[in-house]
Amino acid sequence: MENDIQKKFLEYVKKINHYKQAMALMAWDSRTGAPKAGVPQRAEVLGTLSAEVFAMSVSDQMKDMLAALDKATDLSDIVKKSKEHCQKTYDRNTKIPADEFKAYVMLQSTAESVWEEAKEKNDFAMFQPYLEELVSYNKKFIEYRGYEGHPYNTLLDDYEPGVFTDTLDRVFAELKTALIPLVKKVSDAKKQPNTAPLYAYFPKENQEKLSHAVLTHIGYNFDKGRLNETVHPFAIGINPNDVRVTTKYNEHDFRVALLGTIHEGGHALYEQNIDHELIGTPLSGGTSMGIHESQSLFFEKFVGQSLPFWKNVYPILKQHAGSQFDDVELEDFYFALNESRPSLIRIEADELTYCLHIILRYELEKGLFEGTIEVKDLPRLWNDKMEEYLGIRPENDGEGVLQDVHWSSGSFGYFPSYALGSYALGYIYAAQMKQAMLNDLPNFDQLLEQEQIGVIRQWLTKHVHRFGSLKKPQEIIADITGKSIDAKPLLSYLTEKYSNLYELS
Amino acid sequence: MENDIQKKFLEYVKKINHYKQAMALMAWDSRTGAPKAGVPQRAEVLGTLSAEVFAMSVSDQMKDMLAALDKATDLSDIVKKSKEHCQKTYDRNTKIPADEFKAYVMLQSTAESVWEEAKEKNDFAMFQPYLEELVSYNKKFIEYRGYEGHPYNTLLDDYEPGVFTDTLDRVFAELKTALIPLVKKVSDAKKQPNTAPLYAYFPKENQEKLSHAVLTHIGYNFDKGRLNETVHPFAIGINPNDVRVTTKYNEHDFRVALLGTIHEGGHALYEQNIDHELIGTPLSGGTSMGIHESQSLFFEKFVGQSLPFWKNVYPILKQHAGSQFDDVELEDFYFALNESRPSLIRIEADELTYCLHIILRYELEKGLFEGTIEVKDLPRLWNDKMEEYLGIRPENDGEGVLQDVHWSSGSFGYFPSYALGSYALGYIYAAQMKQAMLNDLPNFDQLLEQEQIGVIRQWLTKHVHRFGSLKKPQEIIADITGKSIDAKPLLSYLTEKYSNLYELS
Repeated sequence: MENDIQKKFLEYVKKINHYKQAMALMAWDSRTGAPKAGVPQRAEVLGTLSAEVFAMSVSDQMKDMLAALDKATDLSDIVKKSKEHCQKTYDRNTKIPADEFKAYVMLQSTAESVWEEAKEKNDFAMFQPYLEELVSYNKKFIEYRGYEGHPYNTLLDDYEPGVFTDTLDRVFAELKTALIPLVKKVSDAKKQPNTAPLYAYFPKENQEKLSHAVLTHIGYNFDKGRLNETVHPFAIGINPNDVRVTTKYNEHDFRVALLGTIHEGGHALYEQNIDHELIGTPLSGGTSMGIHESQSLFFEKFVGQSLPFWKNVYPILKQHAGSQFDDVELEDFYFALNESRPSLIRIEADELTYCLHIILRYELEKGLFEGTIEVKDLPRLWNDKMEEYLGIRPENDGEGVLQDVHWSSGSFGYFPSYALGSYALGYIYAAQMKQAMLNDLPNFDQLLEQEQIGVIRQWLTKHVHRFGSLKKPQEIIADITGKSIDAKPLLSYLTEKYSNLYELS
Repeated sequence: MENDIQKKFLEYVKKINHYKQAMALMAWDSRTGAPKAGVPQRAEVLGTLSAEVFAMSVSDQMKDMLAALDKATDLSDIVKKSKEHCQKTYDRNTKIPADEFKAYVMLQSTAESVWEEAKEKNDFAMFQPYLEELVSYNKKFIEYRGYEGHPYNTLLDDYEPGVFTDTLDRVFAELKTALIPLVKKVSDAKKQPNTAPLYAYFPKENQEKLSHAVLTHIGYNFDKGRLNETVHPFAIGINPNDVRVTTKYNEHDFRVALLGTIHEGGHALYEQNIDHELIGTPLSGGTSMGIHESQSLFFEKFVGQSLPFWKNVYPILKQHAGSQFDDVELEDFYFALNESRPSLIRIEADELTYCLHIILRYELEKGLFEGTIEVKDLPRLWNDKMEEYLGIRPENDGEGVLQDVHWSSGSFGYFPSYALGSYALGYIYAAQMKQAMLNDLPNFDQLLEQEQIGVIRQWLTKHVHRFGSLKKPQEIIADITGKSIDAKPLLSYLTEKYSNLYELS
């Protein structure tokens, strides 16, 4: 009997997974050259498939299976974790009344277009009532769904399971305290890099070849993937045997494609190396946005922006580029590549300043959901914090509080985990992994210099990739480091790297 | 009430259509660069989606709706024709016992791999028992499904609705009688073209640009489609706003890409110009393989292999090619492009000889299903007919009876309509359309010379494209010509063209 229910359940989730694979392919296609005129039809087809996935996730059949699995003993680990996953989705999708959710979806779509206009006009007041309503809906949803400790935790949990405000408050405070003075020192440093050669003309065809070469160099398997051009680069795992990377080419800044490809390649390595045993279950993807970003950042920062890596790759770069680097010493190139400079716009920020952009948003979001901050005060608070953290102040709301699309679509809880996962949580994770890795592979730098990235990748596969979503983020970090989430390794890395680069005293 | 059932039915078929669109995208993807290692997973996902489509096509809900629609009066034309379409699918999918069909599917897959080996070893005897079983299954299925007139008609009807052996016997006899002596005269002609310049090196990048230019030239809308490289070229309509063309590049024979692109472009023009009213119904694709091929052949032959077309395009070709055509007169180029020469292998045949390859297969298939031919006699009959029709005899079964994959997968009835649609039925249709078109557009040649292909395309859209599957093949032909299917226009065209080219007396 218990085997029966496990088998039935696995077949059911496999069907959901198959629909999701079809949807993932459509998502990839829509951003890699699908015909413009096909947009409305594609949306309809996606709508049909996602409605089906939704219906299956909240069906009576699902409900009964979850109840039966609750009573069953002796479940396999895969079934147990898959069940937890489905239970979470079931709860999320059933606790909010359908009519309220529908109204919310309509609000999202209106709010997005209002935001677009407001941003263009630098007019926060125009967007304010919509943002207020979005926050208020989310507060209600949090009440329906319930929360542990802090109401914001429920939203955080959607992106970074089990990582809550207590952890974020702690690590972000630590980061902030150390980063604000470091950023200031770097800005004031006498020694500054010459970045002019980075912007020389670099033909797209050559950049394509370079991207292919570098992806192969870091161990991306082209039998299980492909590289295509797009406008907003992403990596997507349809299944572990079909993980696609996209990139974009800027002929006057080759870093966009090169570092972007390595970044997306890091995501792709994660997905390509998930255990095949997990295929067809809800566990066959990365476990959280933060852990996902830790892999892309590991490869982008600790590999792609490191000096030992460039000892090998600089000649390859020169081979594909024109003559722009002929007279540039490796060390000067490396310094230019790692330039840091405070800026108002998050998506243009460098690795040293990026975290502060995220912490700013985290503090504002958290305040909104605990009720200590009102929507109308956001523009002022935004600008004050920007000045405090980065020493620059926006001149208008378009380059301030209105710069990101996320709030207009109701994506709260997204910054700390994803984009911050991108540069804070993920970066924190990556630095913790790197520190632990050095215990096993103290010759990390030599491995890079000797083109043995495979050894590094295998370490990550063993400790992170293969588990897919079998482990939660904190579990992965604990199993690797024996500790909880900790900002110190990242701070040491940034302090040392930027002190050396900018010759800070 | 009747409006309710119509609405319910249209929603139901729309869901089926959406699944099919997702499957069409997967099919396109799998042949345009999808990762190799993803094959098994892709097959599983396709399996899930097609099982769902199958289940919906034979569900009790479908059965009840079909019955209700039968009783309803005042159905819209779209509902009526969609209902006919679903009824046909329902009947086909329910009349064959599931276990027999399953056994047949397994046989197909075994037979294909046996065929592959047999072809390589030129060993028909090895393949014979499998082919016998495939034929015997199909005979049984025909009994289950029922037939009108001739048992083979049921199979023909799958590909070319309503076109049966009586029509094919008549038009093929006419074609054969005229083509056999014409082919012989062309082979014996004193004047022969110089084809050497066709095979000069022509870089792929340049061919890509040429293919783009020529697709635009014939009116393919890149907002509603895209062009990609593949191994076995095809066009695929995901929906009328997303119709994709693929091609392949041979750097030592530019015709492969150029004429191939025009051919697939003809298919694509059909699908792009189907009425948007039909989107989401079973009628939003071409009505039959034969009519589909009539559109690709119309553009490939009557446009792309015509002299007035090349008056415009020859300079474009020269611009993208190297110097190979510098000393070649347009008329000599045109003659070379239209060279005809009997050959053993169908897929290498030219437009004049191709029909005879198809007629040969038609006669053998029909004989198998009426019981006048046994599988064991196929190799001998094949070779005899080849000698009689084309004056050449295969030296072994690999270049004879074993050359095509189709029979090994049980695709009987496919040649007369599709591949023959390709070059006989479709070609016959296309020639009938051209003749009728000349009544409305007597200046056809001037339109091509003056780059006014749009006028020709609009004529085809008005009389063929926009109807999708609303009309059956014979209806389309009757509405255009006032007559039934007729080989004479094609024969006149071929006789005149090749008599002129080869200066036959």
